[in-house]
Amino acid sequence: MVEVQALVVDGEFPSPRRSGSGIDAQRLALLLAVLAQRAGVNLMRADVYASVAGGLRVTEPGVDLALALAAASAATNRPLPEGLVVVGELGLGGEVRSVPQLERRLAEAARLGFTAALVPPGTVAPPGVVALEVSDLRDAVVRALGEVRVSGAGEAPGEVS
Amino acid sequence: MVEVQALVVDGEFPSPRRSGSGIDAQRLALLLAVLAQRAGVNLMRADVYASVAGGLRVTEPGVDLALALAAASAATNRPLPEGLVVVGELGLGGEVRSVPQLERRLAEAARLGFTAALVPPGTVAPPGVVALEVSDLRDAVVRALGEVRVSGAGEAPGEVS
Amino acid sequence: MVEVQALVVDGEFPSPRRSGSGIDAQRLALLLAVLAQRAGVNLMRADVYASVAGGLRVTEPGVDLALALAAASAATNRPLPEGLVVVGELGLGGEVRSVPQLERRLAEAARLGFTAALVPPGTVAPPGVVALEVSDLRDAVVRALGEVRVSGAGEAPGEVS
Amino acid sequence: MVEVQALVVDGEFPSPRRSGSGIDAQRLALLLAVLAQRAGVNLMRADVYASVAGGLRVTEPGVDLALALAAASAATNRPLPEGLVVVGELGLGGEVRSVPQLERRLAEAARLGFTAALVPPGTVAPPGVVALEVSDLRDAVVRALGEVRVSGAGEAPGEVS
Amino acid sequence: MVEVQALVVDGEFPSPRRSGSGIDAQRLALLLAVLAQRAGVNLMRADVYASVAGGLRVTEPGVDLALALAAASAATNRPLPEGLVVVGELGLGGEVRSVPQLERRLAEAARLGFTAALVPPGTVAPPGVVALEVSDLRDAVVRALGEVRVSGAGEAPGEVS
Amino acid sequence: MVEVQALVVDGEFPSPRRSGSGIDAQRLALLLAVLAQRAGVNLMRADVYASVAGGLRVTEPGVDLALALAAASAATNRPLPEGLVVVGELGLGGEVRSVPQLERRLAEAARLGFTAALVPPGTVAPPGVVALEVSDLRDAVVRALGEVRVSGAGEAPGEVS
Repeated sequence: MVEVQALVVDGEFPSPRRSGSGIDAQRLALLLAVLAQRAGVNLMRADVYASVAGGLRVTEPGVDLALALAAASAATNRPLPEGLVVVGELGLGGEVRSVPQLERRLAEAARLGFTAALVPPGTVAPPGVVALEVSDLRDAVVRALGEVRVSGAGEAPGEVS
Repeated sequence: MVEVQALVVDGEFPSPRRSGSGIDAQRLALLLAVLAQRAGVNLMRADVYASVAGGLRVTEPGVDLALALAAASAATNRPLPEGLVVVGELGLGGEVRSVPQLERRLAEAARLGFTAALVPPGTVAPPGVVALEVSDLRDAVVRALGEVRVSGAGEAPGEVS
Repeated sequence: MVEVQALVVDGEFPSPRRSGSGIDAQRLALLLAVLAQRAGVNLMRADVYASVAGGLRVTEPGVDLALALAAASAATNRPLPEGLVVVGELGLGGEVRSVPQLERRLAEAARLGFTAALVPPGTVAPPGVVALEVSDLRDAVVRALGEVRVSGAGEAPGEVS
Repeated sequence: MVEVQALVVDGEFPSPRRSGSGIDAQRLALLLAVLAQRAGVNLMRADVYASVAGGLRVTEPGVDLALALAAASAATNRPLPEGLVVVGELGLGGEVRSVPQLERRLAEAARLGFTAALVPPGTVAPPGVVALEVSDLRDAVVRALGEVRVSGAGEAPGEVS
Repeated sequence: MVEVQALVVDGEFPSPRRSGSGIDAQRLALLLAVLAQRAGVNLMRADVYASVAGGLRVTEPGVDLALALAAASAATNRPLPEGLVVVGELGLGGEVRSVPQLERRLAEAARLGFTAALVPPGTVAPPGVVALEVSDLRDAVVRALGEVRVSGAGEAPGEVS
Repeated sequence: MVEVQALVVDGEFPSPRRSGSGIDAQRLALLLAVLAQRAGVNLMRADVYASVAGGLRVTEPGVDLALALAAASAATNRPLPEGLVVVGELGLGGEVRSVPQLERRLAEAARLGFTAALVPPGTVAPPGVVALEVSDLRDAVVRALGEVRVSGAGEAPGEVS
């Protein structure tokens, strides 16, 4: 269990920053492209910083969905729900994919007090955890943050229509 | 057996991105140049992201043809056929070349349920798999996606004529 | 116990420098984004240099808060109070977080003569050390430097309103 | 025995690409400068991609001459002769130099069916292989491709006068 | 004992060069920022090259003060005094700090014939060596080179007012 | 004994190339700055490529003088004298410095047929080798190439006045 965070800042410089602390910046850039193309949250011109709490380093794709939602949450100023754990790999088409040892991770999350999990379709959640199955990133954004759209290059990030 | 994906985005910045997650970005840039010069699918001004599913890392050239077709598919919004496996190295002239252990790979693909294979000329497919032999990238694009052309710098990727 | 310093220079070049000697420049860039967004000290267009005294190298997030305050201090020309030790990780929302072995670090600081500590909420300070608990970076800036604001892109760093 | 290929594309971006797959991009840049200065084939403004077939990696200078001729061939759309093997290091003055174990390499080439070899002066070819001795890159281009000239910055690569 | 040198050239390109041979270029950039802000020797727009004689590589901060003075000397065309050894770390506020084994280094300098040492306050010099104690970089510049000021961006380096 | 070569090309791009094959590009950049400032051969706006023959890699400063003279030779189109070996480190002031095992290197050069050596002052040459002692880079250029001057930014390299 790791905690990822994102910070979205109106980009002032020629090429926007994708800066990861504990996260691969290349993967972050790719996830932001998916977020723009597949879920209508366009941060292509914003500076986006992402970080894993505690100085940890994460290299496996199970953190993809959490990272994308953290960026969408930061851009829209809508917090993610309390007690929600997010697990899943993202495909470039926006589809949410399962990852190894997903059930074991959810069991650990249950022990830590999480009561809901945003997960790939077909995931079996442990007792006490509600599984919110999402098939693609657009679904996941709506389930976690409500109906949002951050549109278009040149606008300030965080605008919601 | 790995799954590669590509995402093509209209490039907004001075130098277009070639970003690979699990794939060498230099090789991706080279394959896109071949795709433009030899197969009429010009993505030289688009941002192209490619990824290997599952967080794997691929360094051998047998994935060349699949990667080029994934980019062409993403640019034209035409999906690759279901049940199709793609194997082959690409030369800079656009020719499709055989790779080591090709028959073993196709046998594995057959076990996983693939029923057709886009492969270099002379490949022997296992029972239950139809071998579609292609000699160059242009052939491969037409066999997999139909007659497509993405033309020219400055136009939006994904346009098909 | 390490000593971190920052130097803020009016940025003259297209992309501002974030240069760390003994500190990860990526982490420095992220902390400056947090400082601008969450604490009203905007150094996004300034060149910022940070250094750890003695040629040491620091990689753990417990130095986050000290680094952010060193930058704010340099930008406003207000020195940090004498005898103050600063410990804490910064989240991207500006929240100050606890770090491992915080009590042991404060005990060492007490031995070295520090008499006050800017720390995350709930920290127990050793005898002789006053614990100033701060919940977020804005609090920390005010407690350490007073009411300051460095506003806006394009202005000279160090201006205080 | 390795096979090298080059692809020359009209450069559209501020700094032209020198991209090597299996070949050092710095060495490629240097060889293109020699090709422009010493052999009249000016690709300084073109994007040039080079690749070693089979995913191999080559680091020794014996491949210099082959790489330069592959680029000249691609730029002029003239194929290199069938059955020709090319071996030699290039000096910055354009001179073709011998490399270690040259005779052993030619013997291997003979076994593989090559019947002619473009080689440094004084090379002894094995039976069945005609040695075409060339003293400098200009000679080599003429012997392999005929009289060609690709002139000048800003023109499309591949133009032949 | 190492010998460091600096060369200051009027910068012609968009971002000035900080190039170190045997010295970390990041540290050099930081020291030049300190030199500009704290000692009135502004080389922010000049190209600065620094080198350690003999092909050695130096990574400890005791060389900071010598490096900054070498740059100031090169910029003002005033040689540093003969027989002077310089030791000290620089803080970002311009303060000169002691370094480990300073006395042992000065003893070695005395054996090599140095007769004066520019050192941090409180340093005990060996017999035959005059200790010139300096508390900050501005002091050090004045003691070593006299009253100098290299002012302002855009002017040629080496101008002295 | 290694052979170094340089190629100087009129720079067409915003920042001039310093490209080394077997030689550190940072060191090459520094030597070209010394060549411009101390010997009147200004290649600061030219693209300069340097290479060590045979695919070798050189990291010691004894090659400095040879590299600088190779660049000056290439820029002026004046060949270095036949039978001349060049050894020496360059200081940033343009001074030529001795290097370890200089006599042993000259003895090896004598065995290989070299009859003259451009060397630092005080060098003892073996029988059969004339020692041409040079104290600084300007001396070395004049002794090896005659009176040359390549002046000024923006002019084509290779112009001689």
